[in-house]
Amino acid sequence: MTTKHYIYEFGERTDGDASMRAILGGKGANLAEMARIQLPVPPGFTITTEVCAAYNQQGKRLPDEIWSSVLTAVNNIEQQQGKLFGDIDNPLLFSVRSGARESMPGMMDTILNLGLNDQTVVGLKNCTQNGRFAYDCYRRFIQMYGDVVMGVQAKGEHDPDPFDAVMGQLKQELGIQQDPDLTEENLEELILRYKKLILQYAGKEFPQDVHEQLRGAIGAVFESWENERAVIYRRKYNIPSEWGTAVNVQSMVFGNQGNRCATGVAFTRNPATGEKQFYGEYLINAQGEDVVAGIRTPNPIATMEKEMPESYASLVEVCQKLEKHFRDMQDFEFTIEQGKLYMLQTRNGKRTGLAAIRIAVEMVDEGKISQEEALLRIPADSISSLLVPVFDENHKKAMKPIGHGLAAGPGAASGKIYFSAKKAEEMHAKGERVILCRTETSPEDIRGMLASEGILTSRGGVSSHAALVARQMGKVCVCGATALEIHYETKTIRCGTTTLHEGDFISIDGSAGEVFAGSIGTAPSEVNRVLSGQMSAGESYTYRLFNTIMTWSDKRRYLGVRANADTPQQATEAFALGAEGIGLCRTEHMFFEGQRIDFMREMILAETMEERQAALAKLKPLQRKDFEEIFRAMKGRAVTIRLLDPPLHEFLPHDAETIQSLSKNSHIPAETIRSRVEALHEQNPMLGHRGCRLGISFPEITEMQARAVFEAAAQVLSEGIPVVPEVMVPLVGFAGEFQHQITRIHAIAQCVMRETKCDIAYTVGTMIELPRAALIADTIAQNAQFFSFGTNDLTQTTLGMSRDDSGTFLPHYIEEEIVHRNPFATLDTEGVGQLMRMAVERGRSTKQDLKIGICGEHGGDPDTIQFCHSIGLNYVSCSPNRVPIARLAAAQAVLKTS
Amino acid sequence: MTTKHYIYEFGERTDGDASMRAILGGKGANLAEMARIQLPVPPGFTITTEVCAAYNQQGKRLPDEIWSSVLTAVNNIEQQQGKLFGDIDNPLLFSVRSGARESMPGMMDTILNLGLNDQTVVGLKNCTQNGRFAYDCYRRFIQMYGDVVMGVQAKGEHDPDPFDAVMGQLKQELGIQQDPDLTEENLEELILRYKKLILQYAGKEFPQDVHEQLRGAIGAVFESWENERAVIYRRKYNIPSEWGTAVNVQSMVFGNQGNRCATGVAFTRNPATGEKQFYGEYLINAQGEDVVAGIRTPNPIATMEKEMPESYASLVEVCQKLEKHFRDMQDFEFTIEQGKLYMLQTRNGKRTGLAAIRIAVEMVDEGKISQEEALLRIPADSISSLLVPVFDENHKKAMKPIGHGLAAGPGAASGKIYFSAKKAEEMHAKGERVILCRTETSPEDIRGMLASEGILTSRGGVSSHAALVARQMGKVCVCGATALEIHYETKTIRCGTTTLHEGDFISIDGSAGEVFAGSIGTAPSEVNRVLSGQMSAGESYTYRLFNTIMTWSDKRRYLGVRANADTPQQATEAFALGAEGIGLCRTEHMFFEGQRIDFMREMILAETMEERQAALAKLKPLQRKDFEEIFRAMKGRAVTIRLLDPPLHEFLPHDAETIQSLSKNSHIPAETIRSRVEALHEQNPMLGHRGCRLGISFPEITEMQARAVFEAAAQVLSEGIPVVPEVMVPLVGFAGEFQHQITRIHAIAQCVMRETKCDIAYTVGTMIELPRAALIADTIAQNAQFFSFGTNDLTQTTLGMSRDDSGTFLPHYIEEEIVHRNPFATLDTEGVGQLMRMAVERGRSTKQDLKIGICGEHGGDPDTIQFCHSIGLNYVSCSPNRVPIARLAAAQAVLKTS
Repeated sequence: MTTKHYIYEFGERTDGDASMRAILGGKGANLAEMARIQLPVPPGFTITTEVCAAYNQQGKRLPDEIWSSVLTAVNNIEQQQGKLFGDIDNPLLFSVRSGARESMPGMMDTILNLGLNDQTVVGLKNCTQNGRFAYDCYRRFIQMYGDVVMGVQAKGEHDPDPFDAVMGQLKQELGIQQDPDLTEENLEELILRYKKLILQYAGKEFPQDVHEQLRGAIGAVFESWENERAVIYRRKYNIPSEWGTAVNVQSMVFGNQGNRCATGVAFTRNPATGEKQFYGEYLINAQGEDVVAGIRTPNPIATMEKEMPESYASLVEVCQKLEKHFRDMQDFEFTIEQGKLYMLQTRNGKRTGLAAIRIAVEMVDEGKISQEEALLRIPADSISSLLVPVFDENHKKAMKPIGHGLAAGPGAASGKIYFSAKKAEEMHAKGERVILCRTETSPEDIRGMLASEGILTSRGGVSSHAALVARQMGKVCVCGATALEIHYETKTIRCGTTTLHEGDFISIDGSAGEVFAGSIGTAPSEVNRVLSGQMSAGESYTYRLFNTIMTWSDKRRYLGVRANADTPQQATEAFALGAEGIGLCRTEHMFFEGQRIDFMREMILAETMEERQAALAKLKPLQRKDFEEIFRAMKGRAVTIRLLDPPLHEFLPHDAETIQSLSKNSHIPAETIRSRVEALHEQNPMLGHRGCRLGISFPEITEMQARAVFEAAAQVLSEGIPVVPEVMVPLVGFAGEFQHQITRIHAIAQCVMRETKCDIAYTVGTMIELPRAALIADTIAQNAQFFSFGTNDLTQTTLGMSRDDSGTFLPHYIEEEIVHRNPFATLDTEGVGQLMRMAVERGRSTKQDLKIGICGEHGGDPDTIQFCHSIGLNYVSCSPNRVPIARLAAAQAVLKTS
Repeated sequence: MTTKHYIYEFGERTDGDASMRAILGGKGANLAEMARIQLPVPPGFTITTEVCAAYNQQGKRLPDEIWSSVLTAVNNIEQQQGKLFGDIDNPLLFSVRSGARESMPGMMDTILNLGLNDQTVVGLKNCTQNGRFAYDCYRRFIQMYGDVVMGVQAKGEHDPDPFDAVMGQLKQELGIQQDPDLTEENLEELILRYKKLILQYAGKEFPQDVHEQLRGAIGAVFESWENERAVIYRRKYNIPSEWGTAVNVQSMVFGNQGNRCATGVAFTRNPATGEKQFYGEYLINAQGEDVVAGIRTPNPIATMEKEMPESYASLVEVCQKLEKHFRDMQDFEFTIEQGKLYMLQTRNGKRTGLAAIRIAVEMVDEGKISQEEALLRIPADSISSLLVPVFDENHKKAMKPIGHGLAAGPGAASGKIYFSAKKAEEMHAKGERVILCRTETSPEDIRGMLASEGILTSRGGVSSHAALVARQMGKVCVCGATALEIHYETKTIRCGTTTLHEGDFISIDGSAGEVFAGSIGTAPSEVNRVLSGQMSAGESYTYRLFNTIMTWSDKRRYLGVRANADTPQQATEAFALGAEGIGLCRTEHMFFEGQRIDFMREMILAETMEERQAALAKLKPLQRKDFEEIFRAMKGRAVTIRLLDPPLHEFLPHDAETIQSLSKNSHIPAETIRSRVEALHEQNPMLGHRGCRLGISFPEITEMQARAVFEAAAQVLSEGIPVVPEVMVPLVGFAGEFQHQITRIHAIAQCVMRETKCDIAYTVGTMIELPRAALIADTIAQNAQFFSFGTNDLTQTTLGMSRDDSGTFLPHYIEEEIVHRNPFATLDTEGVGQLMRMAVERGRSTKQDLKIGICGEHGGDPDTIQFCHSIGLNYVSCSPNRVPIARLAAAQAVLKTS
């Protein structure tokens, strides 16, 4: 490979394009693309992501041949701009920015004004006729370079930034309040002190050689790929660390040369709600980082129409051109230098789940994208944003907001207030619902934001760090609620006469931008109200969005979507959300209510088969009634009923009081109960006497359950409602276990059908939830009419990892990147997935059209659904509220693989 | 297939031979073979084993075409014998016996004298001129037929046999004590009463039609394959139930026609000790079942030389011919009818482990068989009979035997006496060592015999049921200890003035045939005394046998054999028994002694890394010292050291007293200890925070252990003793876990080698004990220098079955034949074996010469060793005392597959 391929120029001559984001990063690829379509982009070049890995692995040194290509590219820019890098008369200055394949806002470092030194700053002053501007640029550059490249940073979390401290000291000496009051001379003095600070901290001089500056900055950006916050961010968003970042070196334009200058960020649509409106904010006479950092609250973009009408018109035009060209909502940065607009970056805008849905649907309406593209643009999980509860309107109306801010992350959140990311994390770990309150957030706060239900800031706009990150995380967020005074020292929020202390409840409505003291009750979302008939479909725009996405998805997916539902109520809910059947009805959950648990306990405590049968006889009518109601709710859709699964001791009382009471009710001596509880104790109940092992030890349990199922089916059939019962045997590891159980189930079915003169179209299948079952799936398939993967247990056994006990080490594993994702949330395709693929192949080698599904909790996880599609499952089953997510994910799986 | 193939004749014309035991059963095949080599065999035919399955599956009815072949075969015998079946003048009589592929002595039913009815009995009387004989034959036949075919049996366990009751009643009426005192007329009366009994019990008449008799008897024998004791026997000896039994129909000869008649069983060598001596017993004027049933104590065969010199000479000749022809020790049955010898059966004699070894070695010495054949004839497990402790001679000398019997099962056993099989089972289940005491045993006692350490009977010879079964089970047995009166009613043994009660201790020496009251201490076996230098090799014949087998084995095996040893003492023992290395040294076992456990507890209770390191620093010198001693003991053979594996809470005190004491010694408040114990409690510790998960959470543990290993290695190397340490990381499931651990281990190794200026040839590998590890073995192999299968955990996870908890259902599974063998004893090759095969293939696809072993408890199981050989492992590792077994099994694996 020639070195050419490590450097791509953009400007008058452009080497790359938007398709090359893997090697140019998102920013570099889009700068190239904008240059191609004649948008005003300051010329520059991109060093590819491949160099990042090389740099970080090979002693953090930029290879010489790449450096020489950098110099060539610099040369080309010099020619285009008619300026020279390091020239003392008319110096060319650069920005040096990171740019990964996926946008990681604020995660990595940026250096501006590079190329200034004690000589060139004079040239800049002369060229711009603005000494104050030139020295301000220089001091900013020294500060950024000192921080990013030379490591001059605050030592402790609560220490002030050392440069800020030096400036504060100077301002105090000079009796100056505001930065703009610093004169050119003051800035020269400041620069001297900055350089001294650097020498003290870093042990070497700030470099005057502009080439040394450039080489250092490029290296620092590559290194920033490995910094802690970037690593955490990647972990959260599953960005492989091998990808690396590109480095963009671009000639500087200045938004801070005076009042005909400005800088800003904008979105082609509203990133919080998805509404089609030009949206954003800007600051006059400022550099880009002033906007993003959220230090000054910027002006809404709409005000620019009056302030800078020509520039505004250009921006609106650019905005349309961008959406037309990129066919997606864009988030772009611009600078206006002396009235001239420059585009510094564009990218597909991050958006909330709600916005993703709305933008996708409306862009199809506008003819910009296809339905398929629309489906692929919606993170499947984001459908839940249409389903999460909102504040109860009646309750909310009775409350008065204590403040208003920007509606930066829609949704409703109540929780206790905490003022540091660390404390938020800590309290979350203790099980509390937390609202993180900060004047503004910074990348250091990410973990705390992750741990919170919602985020509230008193400063910063919709493109501030808080808003950006909250949006991407799907967190409820109100930002820039300026009426609130947030005091870290006293841990209080003050607003007029109201004072809230750490741990007090607060509620924030991220759709309306409102803040309330206290906790507010919640109510079902609009979509849920429509689905349950409390609201008409026509009244709700969000229902229209929901329904559109579901319709498009259902047309395209191959995978069936079922729900895991244990009660008639859950079945009804699942049906409304589009479940095509119940993939897992856990019969044991029916045993915990009221007197049932006592009958269950009598059954377990029975010493003879007769006693056991007597107790089972009491349970049967209750089970039968539940099954009837579930069958009715499902109106002819399949219902997979799993036979009793958990270890019996789970049902037994363990404390003295409950034992006493059971003894009284059941006339069984307390001592007997205690000794039975003890006898049933297991070392490793997960691997103990449970699942079909119970039904084999006590066939009468299986027989009672089968009878309840078939009698219920016969009853509901007799009412004219079709019924499709599927009986599922849990925890099968040996073909003989399954054989033992189906023999009894078929016998009972025959018997009930004879008794009721009813023909029930039932099937009998098995869970595949032990490695051994997957390994002998060909044998098991001989008698099974379906398989259903129980991936919870299959994960526990394949990994030898108890879900209940993994909390002591799994978080540490994720931190250390030993595992990349929690295997109990997203299927471990490398390990567990292999066994599943094997079971599918082997099962179907015996029975070509064997129906196979998944009913573990992974069944509602989009990445797992993609995998299930790829190995040819027939359906996934998940909790009712994830059914819509699964429907979309199943369609996406088709689109991604076709 | 023509019906011909279901019936094989033997006699003048012989269809089968010894090679056809799969379809003719052992007995049928050998009858054919004996006929072929001109031994005197009464003519008959065999119905094949294939018919058994057909019969039992197809409504228990003999297909008509087979029945018609039976009639043809009967016809052929009639012609050979010059008698007709059912002829009233000179009736041909048959015996009908079972005969499976593997001998199952006494497990299935036999019917003699078939063909007698009210008419033919008169013919028999006339032909033999012996009315009493004829009617005695007839009443015996009715009794057997009534029992076996018509189901006239005692109802309860303690009820008398109904036929015996009828005879007892008659004898009482007649005032007769002994059976032989019954006259012809008495027997005629008895026959009338027997027939009435059958009608009452079975609801139908005893059949007079001889063909009906034959067809019924054949069916009953086939059915007896499914009877309870046959099923239990098959389970114990892993005989597939599909095999079925053949039926042998053979013309009768009579050992009970007078004093020139006899019947007996004999062995070509002593089946208890293996000594080369003609061995057996016989009864004059008796039928075969009298000998086997153990009712009359028969005469030693040697006495026949004087009593019936001609017959004895024929027998000795037959004996030599049999061994020469069959090339193995034979166990045969014979009948002498009026001075003429008939052979009724021969088979390879069951023998004790000791006898198996001695016979195999001596037959090689005699040039009869090859070394390979010899090795294949010794059940690998039987090597342990050379190693089990014997009675301490000094202790035994001080005791006086209370009785002597036949040395029917060599070895030494002490235990509590119980008098019924059921009670023996029950007390065994409670953890007691049991000696089952019976006047004689019967097939119903098998479970009780299995549960006992030893078996003592007061009646019966070396070929009685007790002796036969004990021999095969490898149980210590003294039988026919006639001086002992065993009283079931009072549950006592009386011998002179001594009376022992149920639950008293008794000791039996099955090598000497001695019985002692009380318990006798044990001492190491001769082989162990030679190996440990307490006895010279030349003094011990058993050592010669042991050494010969080991030498032959070692020449042939490919698999290495290592031992699992955790202490220097075990290492020394393992070395003596031929271990080529230590395959598993569990470091945690070192932590339970003396003050170590306190240091360990301090380590666990540490709240900071500093505290933990301080505790670890106390443990390190202790570990290091153990490793040094183990390295020295192994004299340069490899030692695989597994890092800390079990969940930490296993080391913590759980009762108040120990917590108090620990608190006092460690100055840690008791409350802290209690809460830490609680915090460490896990739902499923097997799947919890253990194995390498500990070393990842607390790398300082791994580092301490690695340092102890390498420092010990350096020390021992410096003494001039070679050292091969292999560090093994437990419970790896993710490549990253292993990577994390080896990085630290290699770093410590480098460090110690620098410090000690020593070059240690160490390797680092991993356990494969989780399904996921097997599945990603290719990835793990990138960094691993060896694999070792931890089949205990791999079985638990693959089957989702906790070994500790499986006791509640696994025995029932084995009874129901859902699993055929305990998967924690013999590897589940169908499930776990698949994963192992996969791991071997994948591991070696990455690293072609990857060393792979097994260190689970399965490593000492011969069938598992065979499997390990077949998948290409490099070595097995097992407990020290199973090393010799593994050496032999590894050689057998080669011989079986070559």
